[in-house]
Amino acid sequence: MKSAARTAAGLAVIFFAYAAFAQSNPAALSARKWREAHEQAILREFLDLLAIPNLASDLPNIRRNAKAVQRLLEKRGAATRLLTVPGAPPVVFGEILRPGALRTIVFYAHYDGQPLDPKEWATPPWQPVIRDGRIYARSASDDKAPIMALAAALDALHAGNIPLRSNVKFVFEGEEEAGSTHLNQILAANKDLLRGDVWLICDGPVHQSRLQQIVFGARGIATLDITVYGAKRELHSGHYGNWAPNPAMMLARLLASMKDDEGRVLIDHFYDGIEPLGETEQRAIAEAPAIDSALRRELWLGRTEGEGKSLVELLNYPSLNIRGMSSARSGEKASNVIPSTASASIDLRLVKGISPAQAQSRVLEHIRKQGYFVVDRAPDADIRMSRAKVAKVVAPESGYPAERTSMDLPISREVLRIAESARGPVVKLPTMGGSVPLYMISQTLGCPTITVPIANHDNNQHSFDENLRLQNLWDGEELMAALLADL
Amino acid sequence: MKSAARTAAGLAVIFFAYAAFAQSNPAALSARKWREAHEQAILREFLDLLAIPNLASDLPNIRRNAKAVQRLLEKRGAATRLLTVPGAPPVVFGEILRPGALRTIVFYAHYDGQPLDPKEWATPPWQPVIRDGRIYARSASDDKAPIMALAAALDALHAGNIPLRSNVKFVFEGEEEAGSTHLNQILAANKDLLRGDVWLICDGPVHQSRLQQIVFGARGIATLDITVYGAKRELHSGHYGNWAPNPAMMLARLLASMKDDEGRVLIDHFYDGIEPLGETEQRAIAEAPAIDSALRRELWLGRTEGEGKSLVELLNYPSLNIRGMSSARSGEKASNVIPSTASASIDLRLVKGISPAQAQSRVLEHIRKQGYFVVDRAPDADIRMSRAKVAKVVAPESGYPAERTSMDLPISREVLRIAESARGPVVKLPTMGGSVPLYMISQTLGCPTITVPIANHDNNQHSFDENLRLQNLWDGEELMAALLADL
Repeated sequence: MKSAARTAAGLAVIFFAYAAFAQSNPAALSARKWREAHEQAILREFLDLLAIPNLASDLPNIRRNAKAVQRLLEKRGAATRLLTVPGAPPVVFGEILRPGALRTIVFYAHYDGQPLDPKEWATPPWQPVIRDGRIYARSASDDKAPIMALAAALDALHAGNIPLRSNVKFVFEGEEEAGSTHLNQILAANKDLLRGDVWLICDGPVHQSRLQQIVFGARGIATLDITVYGAKRELHSGHYGNWAPNPAMMLARLLASMKDDEGRVLIDHFYDGIEPLGETEQRAIAEAPAIDSALRRELWLGRTEGEGKSLVELLNYPSLNIRGMSSARSGEKASNVIPSTASASIDLRLVKGISPAQAQSRVLEHIRKQGYFVVDRAPDADIRMSRAKVAKVVAPESGYPAERTSMDLPISREVLRIAESARGPVVKLPTMGGSVPLYMISQTLGCPTITVPIANHDNNQHSFDENLRLQNLWDGEELMAALLADL
Repeated sequence: MKSAARTAAGLAVIFFAYAAFAQSNPAALSARKWREAHEQAILREFLDLLAIPNLASDLPNIRRNAKAVQRLLEKRGAATRLLTVPGAPPVVFGEILRPGALRTIVFYAHYDGQPLDPKEWATPPWQPVIRDGRIYARSASDDKAPIMALAAALDALHAGNIPLRSNVKFVFEGEEEAGSTHLNQILAANKDLLRGDVWLICDGPVHQSRLQQIVFGARGIATLDITVYGAKRELHSGHYGNWAPNPAMMLARLLASMKDDEGRVLIDHFYDGIEPLGETEQRAIAEAPAIDSALRRELWLGRTEGEGKSLVELLNYPSLNIRGMSSARSGEKASNVIPSTASASIDLRLVKGISPAQAQSRVLEHIRKQGYFVVDRAPDADIRMSRAKVAKVVAPESGYPAERTSMDLPISREVLRIAESARGPVVKLPTMGGSVPLYMISQTLGCPTITVPIANHDNNQHSFDENLRLQNLWDGEELMAALLADL
């Protein structure tokens, strides 16, 4: 526990350095009072929402989620609709119009969650439990938390007779974790309905110091699944070892060729075309709290990559990550075989100036340069026998490019001002490391996007035991109240 | 199916080239006749034996196996005992003494099987089924097949009034696939009981051409389990990618550093100390059928390792094999995380002149040279935070060294002569690629060992869907009858 203590100390220093900022927003303060009196009711409603399994591929349950989210909005006086395309999770749309409003603000979140293996969870992913001040459940943070924070904020404003300043729209998506495959189609079919002066993207975590963070872009994403082949069946490692190529070793060599020890990607042209940051953005990065050492201790990391550059700076580069790797069985189930295949799943994070197809084709070209004959489906016997090395590479088109809104726009400055009045000091970032399909909103609707996250960074999102710190839910409710009342 | 046809053609050529040899052994011919009249009864008894789950770690079931094997021997007139040490699978011992015999022949086999994942099997591993001329079950070939072949051979000789020539002993082990951890202890405690003029090791497959094979040694084995570490928990690959080291990539780089593209191990001193082969052994290798091209096609291999050397030659070198590898989840269960750990299981096959501890320590030293701080149990936070790279390496002492009997011994020549009279042409190999603990028999009992396998090479042993070709069972019965009658 020594390390946890050190981390807490490190983060506290950062936090107090910013404590001079006053949290003075009246709507936020009113929201806090109301919340303190209604915590149990808020949590009850939230836990009910988290209890509905929410994989985008599980359409019956995803529709149950959509209905529940729709009811939640209607309870707060929003007019709602489900925007659908056949076979896809619906977008839950809601709006509260204010006669004479000068602006329309669109709040975006998503109610679906990442795929998971229930065996890895300490408690079942869709049986939410509260322990140690956190709610444990799939999507507790990513990304049902902002939906609940907005609902509670609307209740609080209503109870405090504080009016909304602008027209407000809600767009809650149901297949973000599956790549938002149908979102663009839905945006294109409902352009007028979905346009606003700004889309506030309520997704992702706040800063690791637990300070509020406002983010002006997101990295894009593309994935690749690579399988390399040995013999047509697993072989006895004694009888064939030294002679039959081992696909696990082939994969290790292939992956190792992609990055150096500092994490720099060695694939030709991988960094070509990156759109440079503006001055305001560079200053924001320089001013971001220096949390790397504290974070390293929190995460038990003996080193980091990137030749000493800070995390916040490194997020402005594309990345190549092995998100999973497997060949035969390891650990207790291992047996003495030469595996027949070996597979790796890779995700590529993209920045402005590099498209998903570009990034994928650079990796594909690299695999070819390592001597592989590349196919896009399981190779047959003739292919496997006639080529020294065969790789199946599946490169789905479901990825999307990065997006970034200038910090110099008037609406950017206004969001920052309100957030600081509600939540104190704000960390301003040109981009988040994660991916949300912001590009669609700017390309299809012509609206700028600004990301307003509320979850804790240590939330295990995308992994097992995902959780939301209760204090982040309460802070999020105050921030949403301020934005609803003042933007 | 084109490839299967080509392979069959290739192997047929090899077989017919040897067809000049006559199969003239009277005991073998008599055993064939008897078998042809009793196939159903033999199979019934064999399937019953295969239906008993036989993991060495599953002591209640392994004891059921031991009892069944014991009954099987007693039915053939052997005096039997279970040789035990507490907590370990028993060795089933049996003997049939012949007054005035000049020699004692010991037949060794093992009744336990490799660990498995039942989900990978087409039919349950301990519900044996016969389809397409093969029996599918764990240990159908490895290594209950010789036990059944010996039992049937004894029945056949008895029915044909053909006497045994020598005293015969049976040593059927129950933890070979778990590294024969207690065998040496049992040998040492029962030296007089277990000594013989030769131990015939009935394990492993016949030649890939389906010709009988007699093998004069086995490679040794050692294993290593390597785990490398990233952050203490899985991280969102967007929020931390480019900064937090990815253990899957670290492992890929580490493994890739161990071998070159030709399969040559790059670890310093890995090949030091290899005991050279004698002239007879070198000639035997040169005379072995050239099956590599046919085998390559059968296994769908587009290339092999070893700079053009043949499989049979390469087996006389030590090997390093990744038998399993895993990090987070891949394929459909993949999610966008930086894994927290990555693991690989490695097996090292050893030849005369290199001990398990030597081979393990050479790999360990290599891992250190790659910049790793090596620990032998899960590293704590302080270790992980204070070292750039940490690897947990578990190097069990359960391995054992290689062993080899000279082909020039009189008993070696006699075994070859009898096998050729029973089975036609015989492929003679200085060593098998696989591992059996022959060293114990020579070190503890002072007995030479000769390996007399009967299983088909394409038996999926050590993997899912293990099977025994029925013809191999019948051929094996004839070979055992000849050895029992003539050696």
